[in-house]
Amino acid sequence: MVYAAKKFINDPSDVVTEFIEGLVETYPGLQYLDGFPEVKVVLRADVSAEKYDKVAVISGGGSGHEPAHAGYVGEGMLTAAICGDVFASPPVDSILAGIRAVTGPQGCLLIVKNYTGDRLNFGLAAEQAKSEGYKVETVIVGEDSALPPPRGIAGRRGLAGTVLVHKVAGAAAAAGLSLEKVAAEAKCASEMVGTMGVALSVCTLPGQVTSDRLGQEKMELGLGIHGEPGAAVVDVQPVDVVVSHVLQQILSPETNYVPITRGNRVVLMVNGLGGTPLMELMIAAGKAVPKLQLEFGLAVDRVYTGLFMTSLDMAGFSISIMKADQSILDRLDAPTKAPNWPVGTDGNRPPAKIPVPIPPSRSAKSAESQARPKELSQQGRVLEAAIQAAATVIISLKDSLNEWDGKVGDGDCGSTMHRGATAILEDMRHYYPLNDAAETVNEIGASISRAMGGTSGIIYNLLCKAAYAELKANTESEVTAKYCEIMLLECGSKALKSSIASVSKYGGATAGYRTMLDALIPAAQVLEEKLSAGEDPICAFILSAEAATKGAESTIQMQAQAGRSSYVSAEMLATVPDPGAMAAAGWYSAAARAVKEQYQGSS
Amino acid sequence: MVYAAKKFINDPSDVVTEFIEGLVETYPGLQYLDGFPEVKVVLRADVSAEKYDKVAVISGGGSGHEPAHAGYVGEGMLTAAICGDVFASPPVDSILAGIRAVTGPQGCLLIVKNYTGDRLNFGLAAEQAKSEGYKVETVIVGEDSALPPPRGIAGRRGLAGTVLVHKVAGAAAAAGLSLEKVAAEAKCASEMVGTMGVALSVCTLPGQVTSDRLGQEKMELGLGIHGEPGAAVVDVQPVDVVVSHVLQQILSPETNYVPITRGNRVVLMVNGLGGTPLMELMIAAGKAVPKLQLEFGLAVDRVYTGLFMTSLDMAGFSISIMKADQSILDRLDAPTKAPNWPVGTDGNRPPAKIPVPIPPSRSAKSAESQARPKELSQQGRVLEAAIQAAATVIISLKDSLNEWDGKVGDGDCGSTMHRGATAILEDMRHYYPLNDAAETVNEIGASISRAMGGTSGIIYNLLCKAAYAELKANTESEVTAKYCEIMLLECGSKALKSSIASVSKYGGATAGYRTMLDALIPAAQVLEEKLSAGEDPICAFILSAEAATKGAESTIQMQAQAGRSSYVSAEMLATVPDPGAMAAAGWYSAAARAVKEQYQGSS
Repeated sequence: MVYAAKKFINDPSDVVTEFIEGLVETYPGLQYLDGFPEVKVVLRADVSAEKYDKVAVISGGGSGHEPAHAGYVGEGMLTAAICGDVFASPPVDSILAGIRAVTGPQGCLLIVKNYTGDRLNFGLAAEQAKSEGYKVETVIVGEDSALPPPRGIAGRRGLAGTVLVHKVAGAAAAAGLSLEKVAAEAKCASEMVGTMGVALSVCTLPGQVTSDRLGQEKMELGLGIHGEPGAAVVDVQPVDVVVSHVLQQILSPETNYVPITRGNRVVLMVNGLGGTPLMELMIAAGKAVPKLQLEFGLAVDRVYTGLFMTSLDMAGFSISIMKADQSILDRLDAPTKAPNWPVGTDGNRPPAKIPVPIPPSRSAKSAESQARPKELSQQGRVLEAAIQAAATVIISLKDSLNEWDGKVGDGDCGSTMHRGATAILEDMRHYYPLNDAAETVNEIGASISRAMGGTSGIIYNLLCKAAYAELKANTESEVTAKYCEIMLLECGSKALKSSIASVSKYGGATAGYRTMLDALIPAAQVLEEKLSAGEDPICAFILSAEAATKGAESTIQMQAQAGRSSYVSAEMLATVPDPGAMAAAGWYSAAARAVKEQYQGSS
Repeated sequence: MVYAAKKFINDPSDVVTEFIEGLVETYPGLQYLDGFPEVKVVLRADVSAEKYDKVAVISGGGSGHEPAHAGYVGEGMLTAAICGDVFASPPVDSILAGIRAVTGPQGCLLIVKNYTGDRLNFGLAAEQAKSEGYKVETVIVGEDSALPPPRGIAGRRGLAGTVLVHKVAGAAAAAGLSLEKVAAEAKCASEMVGTMGVALSVCTLPGQVTSDRLGQEKMELGLGIHGEPGAAVVDVQPVDVVVSHVLQQILSPETNYVPITRGNRVVLMVNGLGGTPLMELMIAAGKAVPKLQLEFGLAVDRVYTGLFMTSLDMAGFSISIMKADQSILDRLDAPTKAPNWPVGTDGNRPPAKIPVPIPPSRSAKSAESQARPKELSQQGRVLEAAIQAAATVIISLKDSLNEWDGKVGDGDCGSTMHRGATAILEDMRHYYPLNDAAETVNEIGASISRAMGGTSGIIYNLLCKAAYAELKANTESEVTAKYCEIMLLECGSKALKSSIASVSKYGGATAGYRTMLDALIPAAQVLEEKLSAGEDPICAFILSAEAATKGAESTIQMQAQAGRSSYVSAEMLATVPDPGAMAAAGWYSAAARAVKEQYQGSS
């Protein structure tokens, strides 16, 4: 069975009408003319013919080229756009209505793409308007450079370069020039530009069946904006090669379509045909600029990349190159309120790209290489013992963690944690400044970052970073030798809270989400409570470790709310605890026991 | 055989690097950071960290969402954008480099979409930056409203609504607010917006094979921006229905995702996902606005329609609705130099659409109904005889013209001309003001316009319009009864030249193009020559008719250069003359003979 191409439309015959309705909702400065929807004219809401003291600039043609032409209506560009049905010239009466609506004593310029239907309908409207007393000039744009010089006029279609002509004419009119001068500038601009299109797929008209004319490996060079066949069908090539070909064709001295020679200044337009993402258009633009500079010896003064003159949903782009002296650049740079003229493209670019340097880190510490102190303080010895114990437990838990994770995750929790623990033990022997708890925690983060990778690596790194910042802030102010263990554990309590908050904030989980936080949150709560109740710090640490283990074991009853386990069935989850929580409870408890032993041994 | 999807790229692994190269060529105000291409940071070319006295606003994430996020870098919006690979979070080091490059004493705000990878990488970079002494705040945006309220955080993705948060934060920062206040405004904005996406096709990653997951008749509702499956797969529906469904989902009082109730003011964003043409996005916007107003009782204060947060080449769109008080509107309307923030969307729209009236035609004549005079002047009788003869010849030529046209065109030239001639004869009996040559020619144009249609109808209409304007200009000034015939033919000569110029200008053909002009141009030349040489006007007319016939017959040797015949082989063309030229020579010669008979009969 054959299906009409999928599109976000209602009745295919209403697409242009409904497009215009959306357009004027989006842009309060645009309005449509009475007689809508038969007469499809979009015009500046702030212009009325009787009072308009500038030359009106009018364009239009078949629809399906959005944002052309209605998106270029606005002060400084088009005064009105006449919209035909999809790929069909608007009728004379609509064009005439548009002329009458915006043309004042200064007259109007019609900018018409070189298609027989447009030429004739706009031409007849122009003649009718003249016979009604309006001053009317017409400029025809036909800048297609895809084909060898034609025997007649048939070959040179009006393409995206027309938008550049709109801008030049609109700016000239806004500057208050006479109709003759505006028309002369538009005509001059139209003779300075050449365009060529390429496509990977052809467009599909609303309500029609998609053509697979090009298949999976072919592309078309030199095609029009109505699905007309291109000049050649070739194998798909890298866009670099495609851009080279297009530039050579446009700038060919044989066809001599545009009067551009080495040393000239040009503007470049890379125009998407509707279905090609901006990423690809930018890639083409990025390749075209250095080619124009280096291979053709041209100065590229402006680059316009985006969707300017589309062909419904065609996957393709066109390149336009326009010779540009300062007066044309001034017209292109002049301000406009037309919604679809690009912004941020003006201004001279630096002669060479000067990458912005990365400022040196403010933290001098990170540059210094850390080293294990020759002599450990008591605090240093306690810290070493705690780290040693914590890492050793993790190493011993490897298989259990992997087994649990195999049921609720991707089965590598134990291996990942094992890598981190091994790295910590290795690095501690050489690099950890164990007499400085804050910097040691920071180094643990660095070991984890280097060895673990993945989400759990980042989460543990986050934990260390936040603990480091908290320890740093607290210990720097009041490091006294006395009550060192109390101080440290109080700092540790704050650091634990702070690092939990950080993991929760950035990771998005909290208590009850079946994560490592289900071990650490109860631990932090108990630790804080006991310490503020005046409990012996070592005892408080041990009690908080028990809370961590209890918390971790309770995850067996929890639904997963974050991470990969959230996609696993409740039945499966109910068979195992969360491996991340069990690992956290494991190292935390081991550290607590080691600290207890150290202080009991030394007291 | 399975082919990678056709794309305009080079090496798939270079797409982000090459995108950024094209971006900075297009927008001179953007720059990339040293360390490129490993570090992919786009930042304002005019900001350096040491001297920057505003809060820096930084966002980013995986690429493939162009123009997000780099296209929103610019004064008044983002200060820097950190680009990951396609659909992959940027690494911590890149984020940190971006923070260091643009963050001054006022600190920086990180705006992060709610994906685990982004949260963690940006989070770790934030903590690292803090430990280096930077002031850093983070706001997470997760406004996906497609799914029922989730058990946890997994369900709410950051989508296009994030761009609105960028704008609010960027404007607040540009206004000189403190980091805390900028972060508070961004957080508030993130809680005011809901988004839902729909798609007709899923995206294809560079270098990969296109998925046909949806087939030819299905669409997906409530999907993400990385090709994640949607909440539901349904039959393709008119976009009107799709929009209704999406609005109901976002504004559902059950999920209560956004705090929007009847009477509220909102802004609407219709965001294309990459492969959907602007026409379709505008259609969706045009349907959404009245629904929001009438069905949900909301005031729609701003509408943003375009490509804001895409998903490579996905055919689809998302709708975002944000509750907006005046302070949010002020932030959205504040000026920005970010190239991809839409322009022309601000300003209050009129309470109701007031279509611009079509001004009445300046020509009062066209409103009057013309009528055949009761008494014909001598000139009127001559004119009637000429028209009668010309039309009669065309009627008699019908079959010959059709036969010739069958060989070089679509075979209806005789029938079309016959329709016109018949209408002229019919209308002349009742309506032609034959004593006024100019108005009669104008009426002939009207008869042709009504009866003939198509390209030839427009061309003959153009001929009449131009002749009318010329006759009008010449006869009004010096209508004297004496030498009336000389006067008329002199005017006629000018009118013929003028109308040929008009047809040539708008139709694009000239002598030698194998068109009707190959009869009329020699005729006009001979007429002008003979008259200016003092030849008897009637004789000049007859001689010019002979030139027309000779010219028409010479088309048999001509290549076609315009119109449909330009696609016909030279061999075929060489068998027949151009039917349009033969028709023109036919009516012209018949008119000349009739005029001669009239004057000879009356003299």
